[in-house]
This record gives sequence, C-alpha cells and structure tokens, in this order.
Amino acid sequence: MKTVYVTRRERFNAAHKLWNHDWSDEKNHEVFGKCANPNWHGHNYEIHVTIKGEPAPDTGYCMDLKVLSKILKEHVVEPLDHKNLNLDVPWMKGKMASTEILIIEIWNQIFEPIKKVGCTLHGIRLYETENNYADYFGEE
Amino acid sequence: MKTVYVTRRERFNAAHKLWNHDWSDEKNHEVFGKCANPNWHGHNYEIHVTIKGEPAPDTGYCMDLKVLSKILKEHVVEPLDHKNLNLDVPWMKGKMASTEILIIEIWNQIFEPIKKVGCTLHGIRLYETENNYADYFGEE
Amino acid sequence: MKTVYVTRRERFNAAHKLWNHDWSDEKNHEVFGKCANPNWHGHNYEIHVTIKGEPAPDTGYCMDLKVLSKILKEHVVEPLDHKNLNLDVPWMKGKMASTEILIIEIWNQIFEPIKKVGCTLHGIRLYETENNYADYFGEE
Amino acid sequence: MKTVYVTRRERFNAAHKLWNHDWSDEKNHEVFGKCANPNWHGHNYEIHVTIKGEPAPDTGYCMDLKVLSKILKEHVVEPLDHKNLNLDVPWMKGKMASTEILIIEIWNQIFEPIKKVGCTLHGIRLYETENNYADYFGEE
Amino acid sequence: MKTVYVTRRERFNAAHKLWNHDWSDEKNHEVFGKCANPNWHGHNYEIHVTIKGEPAPDTGYCMDLKVLSKILKEHVVEPLDHKNLNLDVPWMKGKMASTEILIIEIWNQIFEPIKKVGCTLHGIRLYETENNYADYFGEE
Amino acid sequence: MKTVYVTRRERFNAAHKLWNHDWSDEKNHEVFGKCANPNWHGHNYEIHVTIKGEPAPDTGYCMDLKVLSKILKEHVVEPLDHKNLNLDVPWMKGKMASTEILIIEIWNQIFEPIKKVGCTLHGIRLYETENNYADYFGEE
Repeated sequence: MKTVYVTRRERFNAAHKLWNHDWSDEKNHEVFGKCANPNWHGHNYEIHVTIKGEPAPDTGYCMDLKVLSKILKEHVVEPLDHKNLNLDVPWMKGKMASTEILIIEIWNQIFEPIKKVGCTLHGIRLYETENNYADYFGEE
Repeated sequence: MKTVYVTRRERFNAAHKLWNHDWSDEKNHEVFGKCANPNWHGHNYEIHVTIKGEPAPDTGYCMDLKVLSKILKEHVVEPLDHKNLNLDVPWMKGKMASTEILIIEIWNQIFEPIKKVGCTLHGIRLYETENNYADYFGEE
Repeated sequence: MKTVYVTRRERFNAAHKLWNHDWSDEKNHEVFGKCANPNWHGHNYEIHVTIKGEPAPDTGYCMDLKVLSKILKEHVVEPLDHKNLNLDVPWMKGKMASTEILIIEIWNQIFEPIKKVGCTLHGIRLYETENNYADYFGEE
Repeated sequence: MKTVYVTRRERFNAAHKLWNHDWSDEKNHEVFGKCANPNWHGHNYEIHVTIKGEPAPDTGYCMDLKVLSKILKEHVVEPLDHKNLNLDVPWMKGKMASTEILIIEIWNQIFEPIKKVGCTLHGIRLYETENNYADYFGEE
Repeated sequence: MKTVYVTRRERFNAAHKLWNHDWSDEKNHEVFGKCANPNWHGHNYEIHVTIKGEPAPDTGYCMDLKVLSKILKEHVVEPLDHKNLNLDVPWMKGKMASTEILIIEIWNQIFEPIKKVGCTLHGIRLYETENNYADYFGEE
Repeated sequence: MKTVYVTRRERFNAAHKLWNHDWSDEKNHEVFGKCANPNWHGHNYEIHVTIKGEPAPDTGYCMDLKVLSKILKEHVVEPLDHKNLNLDVPWMKGKMASTEILIIEIWNQIFEPIKKVGCTLHGIRLYETENNYADYFGEE
C-alpha cells in the first residue's frame, strides 16, 4: 500500500494558566512557576494535523486539505482562537491547560469529524512556543 | 562614520485584550472583534531591539549584546513575560494594549538604561504574530 | 510625533515566467536562464505591507490590521493567488513579471484603497523565495 | 544497532495545476477549486530526504550528504526546478500533480540511485506551502 | 495508554572539523572536502529532545519542560556551547565530530539524567544547518 | 524615480573567536566571556545583500540576482565558508572578528565588484545567530 501522510497547519492565539485547584496557591506557584500567573499569559499556538491514507486515483488526494482546513477551523480554531483555554472552552473545563492535555482533547474533537468524511487521523503536533511542542498519535 | 546597527532578539509570552473603557461593550466588540474577548487571549511576542553606533576599536563592538540582553531581560522580559499586559504591568496601566502602544512604552522603558551605558537606541520591532508586527524609531 | 509602522503579511501562490517579447527566444533564454521556461514555473510569494501613522488614542491602532488585511485580500491576494502573473492579471498585462515590476504594480493597486480609509502606505516587501526579495517605498 | 537518520533539504520552484482529464471543466473547478486555474499557478517546493543507517567508523557518516545532495540535484531539482510539473517532467506525464502523487514519484526516482551508492532511503517530506505538506516512507 | 511526546529545543554554537587521524591529509581533504579545513569551521547547532510518557493527572505534564531544559543546559549546552567539539569536549575525544556521532554521544549523556527524574527519552533531532540534520532514537 | 531595493541571501559556516591581542588572557575572558574560548567556536552566518536601483525596462530587473549571487559566492562565501575568520581570511587578519567588523569588511569586499557591473550596493544584514545580527549601509 502506498500510504502517504498529509499535514495541514493552522494557528490560534489563546490565554491560559497552569493551575491545579486541589493545590494551595503556594504549591501551584512552586510547581508551575510563572505559568501559574493568576492573571493569565498566552501563546501563539501552531497546530499540525496529519492524515494517513492512499491517494485516490481520480484526485491524487489522500484528503482534500481544504476539507481538513474547514474541519480544523470549525473544531479547533473557532473554539480556541482569541479565547481563554481555562474559561472559554467547554471541552477544556476542569482540565489542566497544558500542551499535553490540550493536544489529547483536540484529538478527541477532530477524530470523529475526520472519520465522518472517510479519512484517518494519524497524528497532531502542537507548538506552544518555538522551543516547546508536543506530538500525539492517539491511544497506543 | 562607519555606523553599524546591531540587533538583539528576545521573546515573551503574554495575555491581553483590546478594550476601551470609555466605550460600551457593544462598541468594543464591534471595533476590536475577537481581540476584545473579555477573558483575554495571548501571544508569543518577539522583540528585536536595534542599537546604532560605531564599533569600538578594542572590542569590535557597537554594544556588547550580552549587556543589551541583560537590559532587555530586566526592563522588558521580566515585567512582561507570562504576564497580563492590561493588569500586571504598571507602565501599561490605563493604556490600550495594542502592539503600537506597547512598542512605544517599551521604547520609553529601555531608552534611558541603554543611554546610561553609553549606547544609542535606534529602533524596535515587535512581532505579535507571524503576520502582524510593528516598528518604532522614537518621536520624529 | 510618535510615528509607528505596522505591517501585515499575506501570501499568494502564482505561476510566471520572465520573457521579453521584443527579443528572440535565444536572447530570452540567455538573459533569463531557467526563469524563461516557456511552460512557466511558480512561487509561494509572501508580501509584507507597512503602514505609517500615529496610534489613535481611542483604539491604540495606527490602522486596524483587519482592515488592511481585507484591502490586501481584495487587491492583491484575490487577483494574484493561484493565478498566472503573465496571463491572468489585467494590471500586469504587457509588463515584465519580475519581483521589481510586480512590487511597483502592487503599490499602485493598494495605495489609493489604503488612502481612502485615511491611512498612509509606507512600504512593501515582496519575497519570491527565501533567498530573493524586494522592497519598495514609492517614487522617491 | 545504532541507527541514525540523516536528512538533506533541497528546494525547487515549479508551476502546476490539478486537473483530471476524464472530468468536465465544471467538475474540475468544483473539486479542485482555484488549484484548477487553467493558466497554472506555482509553488516554492521544499523537499527533505531522509536516509537510514549506521555511522561508518572511519567517517562518522551514515551517508555523505554531499553525495545525497548530488543525487537529489540530478534526480529531483534538475528535472523539477523552474519547470511545469504537468508538462515538462517525463515521469509525471499523465499523473495528477498533487503533492501526494509527486512525493511517490520522487521516491521512485531516487530510491535506486541511493541504493546504488549503498544507502537506504527512509522517508521524504515535501512542503508545497508553509501550511501544506506530505510525508512518504515507501510501500507499507 | 495516552502517550504524548513532548519536545524541548535548545541551541549551541560550536567549532569542529571532520578529520580521521588514521588517514593522510590528502585522503581527509578528498573525503571530507571543506569540512576538513585544518583551522576549523563552525555551526549554530539546534537540538530538539523528545520525551515520551503519559501526562500526570495533577500537572498535565509528561515531563516538566523546565526540568528537561535544565538537564539539557547542564549536559549539552554547557559542555558544547562556544566550544570546539574536537578539542574541548571530554566525551567527544577521539571520536569523529560528525552530526551522526555527536547525536549518539548526546543521547548517551542525557539518557540517564532523564531516567533519574523518572522520564523516558524518546528521540533527538540535531540540526547542523538549515539543510542538514539527524535524528536518533537509541539502539534498535 | 521608482527605486526598488532587491536582496539576495547567502550563507556560510565559519569558526572564530573574539580576542584582543593587546590584552591579557584575563581581560579577554572578562570582556568577551565564552566568545573568547581559545579553541574557537562557530556559527552558521546568514548574509542579506541589498542593491538599490530602478528596474530596467527590458528586463524588469534592478540587478540580475544571478549576477549578485555570483559576486557574493566569489567575494564572500568562497573566502569565508568553512573557514576560520581569524586565521584563514586575508582581509580579516589583525582585525576583531566581531559581527560589526565583519560586516564592514564584507562591504569593502563587495562594493567595487557590484559597482563594476553598474549596480549600487545599498546595505548588508549579517546574522550571527537567530538572536544577534547587524546591519550596515556604508560610511554615513
């Protein structure tokens, strides 16, 4: 099988903080350092979403990236861009707003919509800064 | 005169919103769109600070960029990184947290410390995203 | 005056070739080399458009970059993206499709629309590749 | 085994369009949108080619990247750079000029030349734009 | 298992040359070309270190990247930055200073310190230039 | 006059150290810190050279960037790439190998060759790292 992996990059700018409500303020500041700033801070997040499949003979596409971009705009950019990850996003409520948790929850948001159009989500890369990023390939 | 311009890049991650307190909520949302999100959003800001001068014969330096970096860490990165530009920064209080106002206020913060070590601030570039940035060269 | 320069980046992908119709095929290939390929080649162009002004006290904006982006989408991206610069663009007809001529013609397309909303175009940077780019600041 | 993967990046600028000759014009425009522009458009393609192997004790190399670069210049850059992917490239004739098909055909062009010098092609990444790219690791 | 891969980028600037002491000068220059320049040359190296694990429920972290950064600064940046890879680095003595050997030796330096804090090193990417880089995932 | 500025980027990898032979070892280490490492360190330098002129009517070029690239390869890349800036470069002998001095000396090397083909050098930008760079526009 000639499996090709195609990737679409999208971006969103969001505020967040790292804070565990079961902990004292002191412990939060000790563990999360400046990421626990009570008044939030933020990032230009960059997400790369990879689809796995064989190119269709009539289009040469594994997946039409215009369709993938539309799914990502609806399920990732619209709910996260210019938002507060801790306060404004229903599916992040009560969860740690770390890159690791965010990438898993984004996977959960886009897996079905991508499957519904007949495609297979392979992996996600999520950049928080130019120095820190995460990859996720679903449950192993 | 052999004037050389040397530049140091630093980065900081901050939350902000665009909001004019003299306006109604409606007008703020109308003018600033998603940038007016009440719960904030944020960016990976990137700042490039340029010094103008002649290289000293004994060092070959216009300015030791280790010294410039130290000044920027004290006067820009420390007060802004992992902070809320509207709430946490004394010298941004009561001011619009736009890239334009921020770059002018950063100029005001670093002009004297750079002058005090005998150097001349020439210009600042401030990236809010990969698509939006500002340049400032002082009052003209 | 506290003049700030704000810049918006946009992108478009286009085909072109360098060809002077007053010259023989031989001379075109000699002068333009592989850029004269009869069946065209293409680029991911990247344009940076810079506006000059004083931030307005009520918005903190020199220019609302959403407005600038809209002007650029209408006057630059829409007519050039996924087009052939030599064949598909009315205002490039009969002109050399070099980066230099293209940047001047883009200036001519956006100067008035930007002026009409009360702003001042300062400069344009146009990247043809990561190694080759041009800047234009209007007639001097 | 201490397997190291080494990668060489090369670039080429090409024109193409997405067009299925078995379809009506209407269907082509409907499916491929602006990518079906009859007069072509183009891209700055960026290719990353990865070799897999153990470093040789006497050179510390898995593969001399000067040799890999030479193979890529002969088999990828020379035939594709400043060309029309649909018209000028013998081994793309009659095939869809999508990133997916192009990356498979590039694999077919370079697999044997790399094998002939005793090395093993592991994977290819091909960027069409900063937002769209593909990876291919051969038939699975 | 919800395995997430998190990556930290660090940078160091070093001098090196490629030279096999068992060979004649002629053979060294023939094999390594300009990389064998007797008076050295150098690079801005960029290293990406990837950790594999499940996010902890109380922090949302696979690994605190501040801890990873500290390990990398101690075991990679401190010994390599502004150094000569052939002369100044005890654990590179007598080894070829190729990207391939360097990435294996860096793995050996950081595997245990990362294990000691309860985390699992997954892979390393090491950029020598924007065109040449290596990946290593340990012995296979 | 429709003045356009066109820029060509080139790259070279070199070793250097900052060291003033009129000073004691102690003073050199005190002033230059890790940049004074006796066994050298190195960088991937990136140079952007800008030409100023009016596009010629028959070519649309201010300057053929193939010609500029050839001049830069002969006068900058060839003498500096994979070299030691302090030891291997005749026109850097006895001079501080700082970015500031290097950019001035590169200006001196390329000004005449560019003038000889009828073009005007406007400016040079020289990146030492992604965080440190210099600009030079000739004697003012």
